Amino acid sequence: MPEATLVIPLWADLTAVGLGGVQGALFASGFRGERRLDLLGVAIIGIVMGMGGGLIRDLLLNVTPVTLQSNWYLLTATLAALVGMLLAGVFRRMNAVIVGLDAVVIGLFGAFGTGKALTLGLPMVPAIFVGVCSAVGGGILRDMIMGLPVAIMHVGSLYAVAAGVGCLVLAGAHALGAPLVAASIACIVVTAVIRLLAVMFDISLPEQRALYRRKVAVETSAIPIIKP
Amino acid sequence: MPEATLVIPLWADLTAVGLGGVQGALFASGFRGERRLDLLGVAIIGIVMGMGGGLIRDLLLNVTPVTLQSNWYLLTATLAALVGMLLAGVFRRMNAVIVGLDAVVIGLFGAFGTGKALTLGLPMVPAIFVGVCSAVGGGILRDMIMGLPVAIMHVGSLYAVAAGVGCLVLAGAHALGAPLVAASIACIVVTAVIRLLAVMFDISLPEQRALYRRKVAVETSAIPIIKP
Amino acid sequence: MPEATLVIPLWADLTAVGLGGVQGALFASGFRGERRLDLLGVAIIGIVMGMGGGLIRDLLLNVTPVTLQSNWYLLTATLAALVGMLLAGVFRRMNAVIVGLDAVVIGLFGAFGTGKALTLGLPMVPAIFVGVCSAVGGGILRDMIMGLPVAIMHVGSLYAVAAGVGCLVLAGAHALGAPLVAASIACIVVTAVIRLLAVMFDISLPEQRALYRRKVAVETSAIPIIKP
Repeated sequence: MPEATLVIPLWADLTAVGLGGVQGALFASGFRGERRLDLLGVAIIGIVMGMGGGLIRDLLLNVTPVTLQSNWYLLTATLAALVGMLLAGVFRRMNAVIVGLDAVVIGLFGAFGTGKALTLGLPMVPAIFVGVCSAVGGGILRDMIMGLPVAIMHVGSLYAVAAGVGCLVLAGAHALGAPLVAASIACIVVTAVIRLLAVMFDISLPEQRALYRRKVAVETSAIPIIKP
Repeated sequence: MPEATLVIPLWADLTAVGLGGVQGALFASGFRGERRLDLLGVAIIGIVMGMGGGLIRDLLLNVTPVTLQSNWYLLTATLAALVGMLLAGVFRRMNAVIVGLDAVVIGLFGAFGTGKALTLGLPMVPAIFVGVCSAVGGGILRDMIMGLPVAIMHVGSLYAVAAGVGCLVLAGAHALGAPLVAASIACIVVTAVIRLLAVMFDISLPEQRALYRRKVAVETSAIPIIKP
Repeated sequence: MPEATLVIPLWADLTAVGLGGVQGALFASGFRGERRLDLLGVAIIGIVMGMGGGLIRDLLLNVTPVTLQSNWYLLTATLAALVGMLLAGVFRRMNAVIVGLDAVVIGLFGAFGTGKALTLGLPMVPAIFVGVCSAVGGGILRDMIMGLPVAIMHVGSLYAVAAGVGCLVLAGAHALGAPLVAASIACIVVTAVIRLLAVMFDISLPEQRALYRRKVAVETSAIPIIKP
């Protein structure tokens, strides 16, 4: 397999990291628990959302985390988190923009994850799995660190499903011989479109069957910027 | 060290993954929080329970995760989770079977973990540690993702202890020169027997001493299929 | 880069692990939820606090975890946790000693993390990041496993900040050509002093701005030995 297929351009990677950092800060600034987040807490959530996907991808692939090979990733994520925090009010008024950017970010992380996995020789199913983990891993880590129930586990707008279908398109096109760049762009577009349609038309997966009653003291929050 | 000792037969590995996936789905189908799990949530719990142990083992050993080298692991775990969800009612009536299978699964994951660690040259104590992490790691990940207190941390039937004793038997027998397959079978038997005796006779570890009062708002759930 | 710079003396590493284990047991013995921790739970928290930092560091650096290459790490952490549990009452009366030791432990883990990252060739910013993750990673894992909100995320005494400044001093001194041992000692001293001053004078980071109201059912606990 040629090395060249592995290269994710730094600007694309940093764009995803920066957008993730802003999303993290917006989430954190909407958070209100018994104890308050301090500035560091907001920065941590920004870093987790911006870099978590890439870290999880590289851990699963057992390669040295690329986000730690350059100063730019951490600087970008932290700066984006601080900007996101300070301008949270402005961003909130541009809800549509945020939801749109978020949909693109999921697509970017999914494409980077599945693409890297395929170029490392993983079979199709685990390559898609790695892509989905990259796309939603930052959000899962965020929820776990904040002590919230993991948003994507619960009935809601298709988030992981959008990433999954996008990554499936990438892996399928790659298997059929399409160039990786074209397949990645298709992945990003498909993911973003499914996610946006799900938000617009409030589509969700069916609830699981045969629920038994057992109370757990959780009050949840999911993605506040979308359903305030 | 000969390569041959490292080989876990695919059918054995997939059996453990499948049983783990079913267990995960049964757990998830018994869950009832403020927000409901959707189908994806059930599948995620199944994947986490079926593949979490192997992923944690390979991360700790810093080797490429074997569960991502083939399509079969993810397909097996997901399929098992869906079957487990649809047949949750049936499975619940066969409680004894489930508890028995669960005990065998802990033994399998413990044996695979400790065996792989030993063949990679780890000393005895960390090899046992890796085995126990493999055996109980899926359950820990499940509880963390679902926002529940981690079941094995609390007073209950011996779960991690059973895995620990089984892995100790494996490592001890290996140190005394026993072949790895025989030692692994002993590990699985010992783990399962201890676990089943603990469930049957309701044996548990002594509570920690010197508890001070501090309330934390957790309502817990542990392993619902065993103590409904 | 010479191999020699990478060596952390085993006694220093085990000292940090042992102190971490004691801290973990003291934390666990102060914990009182709906379900009680058993002896194993206390041992797990001790292992997590003593070995978590080193494990996270080695995972981020994609190297084989050094804490699993020898029997001593797990034995030290477990023994320290049991001693910590049995003598919790004694330790509690020596609060100043505990806070002081804790400050030194953060410094040790931070110095080991950043030092190892630098010798592996990481740039400055990610090297500092790895150091901070090593310093506070054990506490984050502990909180996640116990289902508590992560202490360092919330308004409180400077914990991660102390580690960050210390690691920055190490990386800066290293960039200016200082020997790694001297830079590491400076890191430990700076971290411990900032942490102790923050505890003594109750200094904290400013709260994040622009908080919106949203209740989440968390009752938190942070570091009970410091603010009982």
